[in-house]
Amino acid sequence: MTIRNKKVAIVSPVAWRTPPRQYGAWETVAGNITEGLVARGWDVTLFATADSITRAHLHAVVDRGYEEDPAIDPKVAEYLHISEAFEHAAEFDLIHSNYDFMALCFSRLVKTPVLTTIHGFSSPRIMPVYEKYRDEYFVSISNSDRAPGLNYLATVYNGIDLSLYPLQERGGDQLVFLGRIHPDKGVHLAIEVAHLSGLPLLIAGIIQDQTYFREQVEPHLDQKIRYIGPVDVQGKNELFARASALLHLNTIPERFGLVLAEANAAGVPVIAMDLGSCREVIEDGQTGFVVNNAEEAVERLQHLPAINRKACRHRVEQLFSIEAMVESYERVYQTIFELEARKQS
Amino acid sequence: MTIRNKKVAIVSPVAWRTPPRQYGAWETVAGNITEGLVARGWDVTLFATADSITRAHLHAVVDRGYEEDPAIDPKVAEYLHISEAFEHAAEFDLIHSNYDFMALCFSRLVKTPVLTTIHGFSSPRIMPVYEKYRDEYFVSISNSDRAPGLNYLATVYNGIDLSLYPLQERGGDQLVFLGRIHPDKGVHLAIEVAHLSGLPLLIAGIIQDQTYFREQVEPHLDQKIRYIGPVDVQGKNELFARASALLHLNTIPERFGLVLAEANAAGVPVIAMDLGSCREVIEDGQTGFVVNNAEEAVERLQHLPAINRKACRHRVEQLFSIEAMVESYERVYQTIFELEARKQS
Repeated sequence: MTIRNKKVAIVSPVAWRTPPRQYGAWETVAGNITEGLVARGWDVTLFATADSITRAHLHAVVDRGYEEDPAIDPKVAEYLHISEAFEHAAEFDLIHSNYDFMALCFSRLVKTPVLTTIHGFSSPRIMPVYEKYRDEYFVSISNSDRAPGLNYLATVYNGIDLSLYPLQERGGDQLVFLGRIHPDKGVHLAIEVAHLSGLPLLIAGIIQDQTYFREQVEPHLDQKIRYIGPVDVQGKNELFARASALLHLNTIPERFGLVLAEANAAGVPVIAMDLGSCREVIEDGQTGFVVNNAEEAVERLQHLPAINRKACRHRVEQLFSIEAMVESYERVYQTIFELEARKQS
Repeated sequence: MTIRNKKVAIVSPVAWRTPPRQYGAWETVAGNITEGLVARGWDVTLFATADSITRAHLHAVVDRGYEEDPAIDPKVAEYLHISEAFEHAAEFDLIHSNYDFMALCFSRLVKTPVLTTIHGFSSPRIMPVYEKYRDEYFVSISNSDRAPGLNYLATVYNGIDLSLYPLQERGGDQLVFLGRIHPDKGVHLAIEVAHLSGLPLLIAGIIQDQTYFREQVEPHLDQKIRYIGPVDVQGKNELFARASALLHLNTIPERFGLVLAEANAAGVPVIAMDLGSCREVIEDGQTGFVVNNAEEAVERLQHLPAINRKACRHRVEQLFSIEAMVESYERVYQTIFELEARKQS
């Protein structure tokens, strides 16, 4: 395609490094988009923290993620980072923002078209910004995570780097929870499933809600239910190798759920709550089960042997690979270039 | 002057209404600049909350101050408010920002020159923004509150509306503290002066630091030392009528100190700490005393009868009136228009 001679700026968040060392879903996906585009021959500039790792051109004005350096004021870092990208807008044919509502507020001050992938509506209080800029270009990361009235060009599922999560042919006998320790992620429900089933549970992830951890997780920790802290990619793979299933009993609608795809990539079946995107990421009965409560999750455990681990990986390859994601974004970019050309003619 | 046919946008903060109902120093001054310019025939558009009161054109996208409505996210309000002003930049010959570092991040995206009055460096962590935009146009509000290396065009002292604070010819017998209840403002030192002198003290202002209030103010409250909560303009005048002196024993450098000028306008002598701008706003021995600690403040109390109340007001009329401030800003604006014209020729 001739559009690959276009120059694209990818704006990643600066909460964490791109790609993040451990937690940081938005930075993970922004990084995957960047590397996927580079692999397909695009001229890409990544706006991210200065310690980021990329094969694209890196443009950075913030040294480190503000979550990784208390000397950095988040608001200051965001303003400096986003404005820097827009000050260089004329150098690009497209600015692809992966950074929440803030970049939208700069979009009308430049001629370069701006595409925003909405990685989640972090609060109802940010909706006034989306309402004002509703006619800009948007991508949703699942069909379920859409706000009415926005000019969506497509849903593009997040893509993961499949080489990072090799297929674990056999799996283990542990239930695994992997995610932020926060009520939204239903760690307490995973613990309930472990109690009801008598199966061992490994819990991994950053503690985002200390009170929740102290009151609803810590008291249940023992020989069979263990918390091992946050894990990096290697740690995730070690978890997947020991897993009979990933439990993801989220209590609010999931926007996408990267870890569901990562687990499936490794061949691990996922038991997920039927909220938000889970039914899109997991094919019920084929790559795991979508349930409505902890009791249903316990019941499904006996059906785990029916899940084909290779089929789990195969579905991720088809739908949630970097390549699939980047091909979708190429189509979105093409649409934008055509729309913009029409405006000018 | 012919420059008054130029169109000016004044950007006020949106923490509070402009002018604020009670507390809100930046909004007070931004409002005074606006009304002063209008009074002198300028075409001014005020960007502020929708409930603001002005004789200028009001342009608002945020309904109420985010400090006055918990449903409003401060970050969202700031982004929407500031970007709206810059999206209309082409309609103005000058954007005069009174809103901290954020507006600077939009300044390079428009052709309209941007003047920033720095009402205070709220944190050392915001300095990277000023370093990046050091060559923009800046005004300091006192000679003491300057950061090295910025392109300052002038110091313009804050101006107050003298009609709001009529001269109290006689005054009373109370010591008065008026300001945020926060360690920075030295409420505890005012209490110490009251204890050492045996004089009664009236304390007014919003409680910004609850722990400080509970631990260092509340235990001292009794018949002679009283806390009366926040006060509006009328409440301030009632305080000034009862005051023998205003105690302003700040513990960090004052940036300007609006309340010092307000008290002086009402004829109330001020005893202020020799930190930051206090020595610029108060003329030591003429409109009050500038001291180094509570003991010195107590010693100065006996010299209060030597302070001429009319002289206090007269100095405010000369230096800290809206008219004096706006005349100074007109000179700054003129300088900017000349510099910009030179750039274009």
